[in-house]
Amino acid sequence: MALIVKKFGGSSVATTEKIMAVAGRILADKGPDDKVVVVVSAMGDTTDDLIKLAKAVTDKPYGREMDMLLATGEQVSIALLAMAFASLGQPAVSLTGFQAGIATTGAFNKGKIRAVKAERVLAELDAGKIVVVAGFQGMTAGGDITTLGRGGSDTTAVALAGAMNAAVCEIFTDVDGVYSADPRVVKAARRMREITYNEMLEMARLGAVVMQPRAVEMGKHYGVPIHVRSTFTRESGTIIREAYTVEEKEFTVRGVTHDANVAKVAILGVPDRPGIAFKVFSALAQANIDVDMIVQSIRNADKNINDIVFTIAQPDLPLAKQIIEKVGSDMGVLGVTVDENVAKVSVVGAGMYGSPGIAAAMFGALADAGVNIEVISTSEISISCLVQADKVKEAVAAIHARFFPDNANGG
Amino acid sequence: MALIVKKFGGSSVATTEKIMAVAGRILADKGPDDKVVVVVSAMGDTTDDLIKLAKAVTDKPYGREMDMLLATGEQVSIALLAMAFASLGQPAVSLTGFQAGIATTGAFNKGKIRAVKAERVLAELDAGKIVVVAGFQGMTAGGDITTLGRGGSDTTAVALAGAMNAAVCEIFTDVDGVYSADPRVVKAARRMREITYNEMLEMARLGAVVMQPRAVEMGKHYGVPIHVRSTFTRESGTIIREAYTVEEKEFTVRGVTHDANVAKVAILGVPDRPGIAFKVFSALAQANIDVDMIVQSIRNADKNINDIVFTIAQPDLPLAKQIIEKVGSDMGVLGVTVDENVAKVSVVGAGMYGSPGIAAAMFGALADAGVNIEVISTSEISISCLVQADKVKEAVAAIHARFFPDNANGG
Repeated sequence: MALIVKKFGGSSVATTEKIMAVAGRILADKGPDDKVVVVVSAMGDTTDDLIKLAKAVTDKPYGREMDMLLATGEQVSIALLAMAFASLGQPAVSLTGFQAGIATTGAFNKGKIRAVKAERVLAELDAGKIVVVAGFQGMTAGGDITTLGRGGSDTTAVALAGAMNAAVCEIFTDVDGVYSADPRVVKAARRMREITYNEMLEMARLGAVVMQPRAVEMGKHYGVPIHVRSTFTRESGTIIREAYTVEEKEFTVRGVTHDANVAKVAILGVPDRPGIAFKVFSALAQANIDVDMIVQSIRNADKNINDIVFTIAQPDLPLAKQIIEKVGSDMGVLGVTVDENVAKVSVVGAGMYGSPGIAAAMFGALADAGVNIEVISTSEISISCLVQADKVKEAVAAIHARFFPDNANGG
Repeated sequence: MALIVKKFGGSSVATTEKIMAVAGRILADKGPDDKVVVVVSAMGDTTDDLIKLAKAVTDKPYGREMDMLLATGEQVSIALLAMAFASLGQPAVSLTGFQAGIATTGAFNKGKIRAVKAERVLAELDAGKIVVVAGFQGMTAGGDITTLGRGGSDTTAVALAGAMNAAVCEIFTDVDGVYSADPRVVKAARRMREITYNEMLEMARLGAVVMQPRAVEMGKHYGVPIHVRSTFTRESGTIIREAYTVEEKEFTVRGVTHDANVAKVAILGVPDRPGIAFKVFSALAQANIDVDMIVQSIRNADKNINDIVFTIAQPDLPLAKQIIEKVGSDMGVLGVTVDENVAKVSVVGAGMYGSPGIAAAMFGALADAGVNIEVISTSEISISCLVQADKVKEAVAAIHARFFPDNANGG
């Protein structure tokens, strides 16, 4: 007997045929005494369709009423999936986020789960039912429906699994696990059997799109293993957990990620005075712009002026440029340049700290591939290099080949 | 200042354009200090579309999960209408049946309102908001969503109005009031300014389809006036209330109704023994078949045998025939005949009791029009005649002309 939470995304339940298929698969996999909770998203394009309706009546399609509207999407999915189980002879019950005890903060459109009161879910499981829970939604203490923002259904599933002390939370998706690099870019990318929460978080931060960081953080908080696996095959995928259960020493580097959604901003000729960097970055922070890699270099030691280079997400560039040009002109800098034609390539691995050869190997791989490095930054478990955007695939392939030679065993 | 509850049905909110129009109309009608609650149904064909989805996964599309599914329809409408108000600059908030305090029984698909806890609605009104409430739904004490069955949104609106002691509950519909006869049948039909709850209930029972009886009963229970009026015009419609506010003596008969959804069953040659009628009608009651007009007549006094004739709703006929043939054969009756080619025409008026001329005038009008009367039944506030179905329009017109002469003032 095991208590298992399974999450299926919108593409897995896009049609009634797919809903029947999901129900059939869950029953085929279910041991006689297993207790199963299924978290689902809205069917296929439902959320987009609802947003279109909202845009037809208001040019501000967000806030409390948007959550009221969007929450119907998952409510349709859970009702239909519970009916599908019933039609296959399996007792089941659907629960909205509220009914499943998902208590959220009052931040509409980007609510956070503040507690999970799983009493009803547990009672329904004890009554022999499969419990189908609406992902992506919960209710505030004041009785308002909130949605959880991007990746919210994953977070619902992991939080429920954690609160109920489930054996595992299975995330069914259109990829069959977490790879050592994006398989669309690197054919030789390997599926990992295991990866730590911290590695997964760092990979997500650095461009891997398999799982939303909030769900991984939730898993880390509760210590519940997250099994990322394919909706379309029965194979095992990748298990995200606190530490490896098997020794996999040969790969200190666990993954190579890349992120093309990056822009570089350079402020040239900045006076080298205390408080200058603070002015620049607090102005950006006030505009809610996240700054990633930051490098300050000496432009002219005699004149005491520096260059400051940093990266941001591409959509933030127009606003950031405006802010920096204003701040820069106040400070009398030589100029501001921006470049969207950049990308970030990174290596991630929990065991990297204390392995100084990693950085050298990465830079060597890039040099051998003729890829120029513009900016470098490091964290305890990652090293990132900014490269020209049109070189990013070659960069990923070269680095991956260096750390995952073809004749080595899979991780 | 007045507290007003307004209800708009699915055809009034079928598109986002119509939702904007409803919001605009409500604001145009709203006095500066009026407190307004709007109850809406699901948009247009939404409910049918959801039922189609359910039928694709199960051949039993009812029960708890069906209510979970259908309740999303109103939730979409309320969110969009609240957004429409906001886009017109009017603060508004949408509430599901549960959030609006509509407590229901656990009978899925045909829940009944057992209490209305309007605290949150009142608080939102006090905060200056228009409150948009999902009709047709509520929540059980156990936390399950139930729908209210046919006419459920009217019932929600009237119950809320009653619980909050509203000045009036306005039901916006595609007709502009309650008429002295169906205007599609009788061109000279008059719109009534007022009608009593009891008259409206009797007219609904006898075929008028303007309002569901449960909503009228709810109005009577709370004593809240119900104003039936058109979505498409600004004119006043008909107010349903306990008693007339104006003397309207000239029309003792308030309405002429007809119902073609009727079938006649005759049991011929029934032995005249105590308990026979009980056997017949208890068998029908067990099958949940409502019996309407009942007449027992002596067939042969010497042999002590009678005929029993009664009417039922046409959809019940196949089952009723089967039951009656079984019971009849046990009792040794001469035969059972059925006739679907019948219709019921009725006159309704609270002041009829004690006006013996009404029945004579009705029968005279039918005789003059050459319409044969098959069965007659009376209640305290109505008289009904069963006639051949192909004569029903002539019958209604003739009776209406007798009681509402063209030169008289409107009621």
